[in-house]
Amino acid sequence: MAKEKLVKEITSMDEDFARWYTDIVKKAELVEYSSVKGCMVIRPYGYAIWENIQKNLDNMFKETGHENVYMPMFIPESLLNKEKDHVEGFAPEVAWVTHGGSEKLNERLCVRPTSETLFCEHYKNIIQSYRDLPKLYNQWCSVVRWEKTTRPFLRSSEFLWQEGHTIHETEEEAIAETERMLNVYADFARDYLAIPVLKGRKTEKEQFAGAKATYTIEAMMHDGKALQSGTSHYFGDGFAKAFEIQYTDRNNQLKNPYQTSWGVSTRLIGAIIMVHGDDNGLVLPPKIAPSQLVIVPIATKKEGVLEKASELYDRLKASGLRVLKDFTDQTPGWKFAEYEMKGVPLRLEIGPRDIENNNCVLVRRDNGEKVIVSLDNLENEVNAILEDIQASLLKKAEKNMAENTFDATDLEEMKKIADEKNCFIRTMWCGDRECEEKLKDVVGVTSRCMPFTDEKLSDTCICCGKKAEKLVVWGKAY
Amino acid sequence: MAKEKLVKEITSMDEDFARWYTDIVKKAELVEYSSVKGCMVIRPYGYAIWENIQKNLDNMFKETGHENVYMPMFIPESLLNKEKDHVEGFAPEVAWVTHGGSEKLNERLCVRPTSETLFCEHYKNIIQSYRDLPKLYNQWCSVVRWEKTTRPFLRSSEFLWQEGHTIHETEEEAIAETERMLNVYADFARDYLAIPVLKGRKTEKEQFAGAKATYTIEAMMHDGKALQSGTSHYFGDGFAKAFEIQYTDRNNQLKNPYQTSWGVSTRLIGAIIMVHGDDNGLVLPPKIAPSQLVIVPIATKKEGVLEKASELYDRLKASGLRVLKDFTDQTPGWKFAEYEMKGVPLRLEIGPRDIENNNCVLVRRDNGEKVIVSLDNLENEVNAILEDIQASLLKKAEKNMAENTFDATDLEEMKKIADEKNCFIRTMWCGDRECEEKLKDVVGVTSRCMPFTDEKLSDTCICCGKKAEKLVVWGKAY
Repeated sequence: MAKEKLVKEITSMDEDFARWYTDIVKKAELVEYSSVKGCMVIRPYGYAIWENIQKNLDNMFKETGHENVYMPMFIPESLLNKEKDHVEGFAPEVAWVTHGGSEKLNERLCVRPTSETLFCEHYKNIIQSYRDLPKLYNQWCSVVRWEKTTRPFLRSSEFLWQEGHTIHETEEEAIAETERMLNVYADFARDYLAIPVLKGRKTEKEQFAGAKATYTIEAMMHDGKALQSGTSHYFGDGFAKAFEIQYTDRNNQLKNPYQTSWGVSTRLIGAIIMVHGDDNGLVLPPKIAPSQLVIVPIATKKEGVLEKASELYDRLKASGLRVLKDFTDQTPGWKFAEYEMKGVPLRLEIGPRDIENNNCVLVRRDNGEKVIVSLDNLENEVNAILEDIQASLLKKAEKNMAENTFDATDLEEMKKIADEKNCFIRTMWCGDRECEEKLKDVVGVTSRCMPFTDEKLSDTCICCGKKAEKLVVWGKAY
Repeated sequence: MAKEKLVKEITSMDEDFARWYTDIVKKAELVEYSSVKGCMVIRPYGYAIWENIQKNLDNMFKETGHENVYMPMFIPESLLNKEKDHVEGFAPEVAWVTHGGSEKLNERLCVRPTSETLFCEHYKNIIQSYRDLPKLYNQWCSVVRWEKTTRPFLRSSEFLWQEGHTIHETEEEAIAETERMLNVYADFARDYLAIPVLKGRKTEKEQFAGAKATYTIEAMMHDGKALQSGTSHYFGDGFAKAFEIQYTDRNNQLKNPYQTSWGVSTRLIGAIIMVHGDDNGLVLPPKIAPSQLVIVPIATKKEGVLEKASELYDRLKASGLRVLKDFTDQTPGWKFAEYEMKGVPLRLEIGPRDIENNNCVLVRRDNGEKVIVSLDNLENEVNAILEDIQASLLKKAEKNMAENTFDATDLEEMKKIADEKNCFIRTMWCGDRECEEKLKDVVGVTSRCMPFTDEKLSDTCICCGKKAEKLVVWGKAY
């Protein structure tokens, strides 16, 4: 009855990275497909990762003064139509509700693809004076975008996310908020997900529909491709004007306020998989792993083994760690493969000989290292190793990004680099959309971001040779 | 510029309970209406109550072995149609998505009114053997039911809830789960919301579409009306048969598993309002209040007052309490009314004379009692009072339910009781739907539940006089 050793069934990442990814999301039991086109079932193990992401990010939002709210999931067509750029960006990919029960609706409702319009309508209702500002709101919900090609976590028709929506007295305050939340995202990615990111501004072509500026964090996956992992938008007073949101300022004048929005989604789980995973499965950073350590008893029928394993389980749990124990009758080998597949950061093995020596064996998921540690000091040893795993994962990911980031000042050179491997390529750019599109056609890359830097690689655009002020990072993206 | 004293604007509950309710949800800033028919915006203060409900209930679910998942929000029409009773119950009130972007869909999708069908499809995919059972899943999400008449929290077209869906090897196990979760709900209502509930089984007429048995917790509001506050359903193997879910049992035979589902929603916030609120606004039980105590400094311009108030804020926060401080330039009177409206359980006033005497004043929201306490022992005093408030609220609600529950053995008597006031009326019932419907027409009540008891008030049905085994509690319901 025992399941097969799961690891045999995964495609190697070097052979086919895309299939490797799909194998992992299925075999680590993160998601399952459903009969609804482009929608996925997030299974307990996948959802537990999302819960840890939520909990920690939500704390960071609250520490920076944000409050959670909940907006309706439907947007009347007339409301979606109020901001011109916004509706143009989203209308082609929304799901339309046309009937309630057996009755045809007077006005179609779309299922929210994002909620700027609903927040604007609400802000118009509740904001009168500068005393009502700022409002720093966030919501955790699911949104729907009718995608043609979908992949679990990376691009699905429905996905879970958070969307922050804030409104301010001044331009400066709103811009500061846009930057603050980008930094929150970057810090979270680094400190919890062990993922280094590039911070920068999107080119106009890649900007959010209706935004004056879009900031982004871009992460590099193991295969050298980029994943846009979070965005923060500055809207100026464009939405406020379209929705007629006004407030009485400190000089008793009517003014339009300034707005931002920012979001990250379950896509972050895709990033974790593709940054840290290996040919044995998922590798989870201890800070967001549903279980940080799994206890696998050896020779479970020998007297005292299960008792000792239970005792260690209780001890480690009491110390505040997230611990799992597997006392089932599967073989140790099966269990090793199973928890490697699931990316549990640390495995604790304990058998009769270990007990005799007052020891246990700890095996790291990230590098396979085995150490024998005394049971006397177990909690501290485990914590130290988990910290080291967290730091090592970040370091490895930083190394991958550094080693796969190249500068180019010549189009042929750029093309050669891009043909050779997936990577980040830094070049100067004149700012023209034409050049941006040409680079896509000729080199096969898209602009990832313009990092916040004054650095210059040359004075001219890599594409047209005209004067260039902007440093851009290009890459192939998911 | 100062806001008006809010409390002046509320309708008295004795004058018009429905308007009083609507005034509170608006004035305490729990919800705001939106342009989407029957949908509401849950504002930060309302959502913070929901977050506290979620956090504590979720802990109780996890302690009883449940795991969270996320299912798609759409159900293809063919999937909804698979279980006959279920689709009949829900099809008339679902929202239909017919278009994705500009394309008409091949098959309509409904926005989930509840997710039995999706869980069944998923269970069919992942369950093969008795080793895969039980699955104890839950999800937090929003659902849509196209309601004609809506009221914030009580009945809205979209609402937030949790829905547990479990699947088991045996009938006994599934029934035990159905009962266990009903008890979790009842315990939660009593221990966190300070709301006593009646536990029982629904009559067949009031049963969930597709269920073999529906259990319910029924709470009595301040006005004597009933609010169905949570339900737990036993499905037998009906859904499993309709969806062809089978597993290989311990004797290697193919069998259909047994299922349950159970849910509570933001309706619980409506219950809190209507059980504990008064003419000054909301009254929140300390265990789920977003802020348990608010600090209002008196004579803020006097030297040392704000410093002392800040010091107390830090001390109380450090002790683990949820504390708010209001150092704005509004008058103390305005602040008192404001936090009474918002139902903050305890108010701490501190002014120059208090500081001189090393004292502060604590004022209870539930009964207005004022006590002067020494600052030396503040944390303990506050905790003791909060515990007493929690206990007093429960006691008061229990008293209201006890005083407004009556037995009747005669139809005229029952009618007289029901005409006089809203209340629970206990009678014997033969079990016939006809009698149930007649009582609705003649007495104006619906069956709330059949409590789990062997108690008998007589041997005959209050309506038809035939032999009756069942004790039923009747009432007017929201």
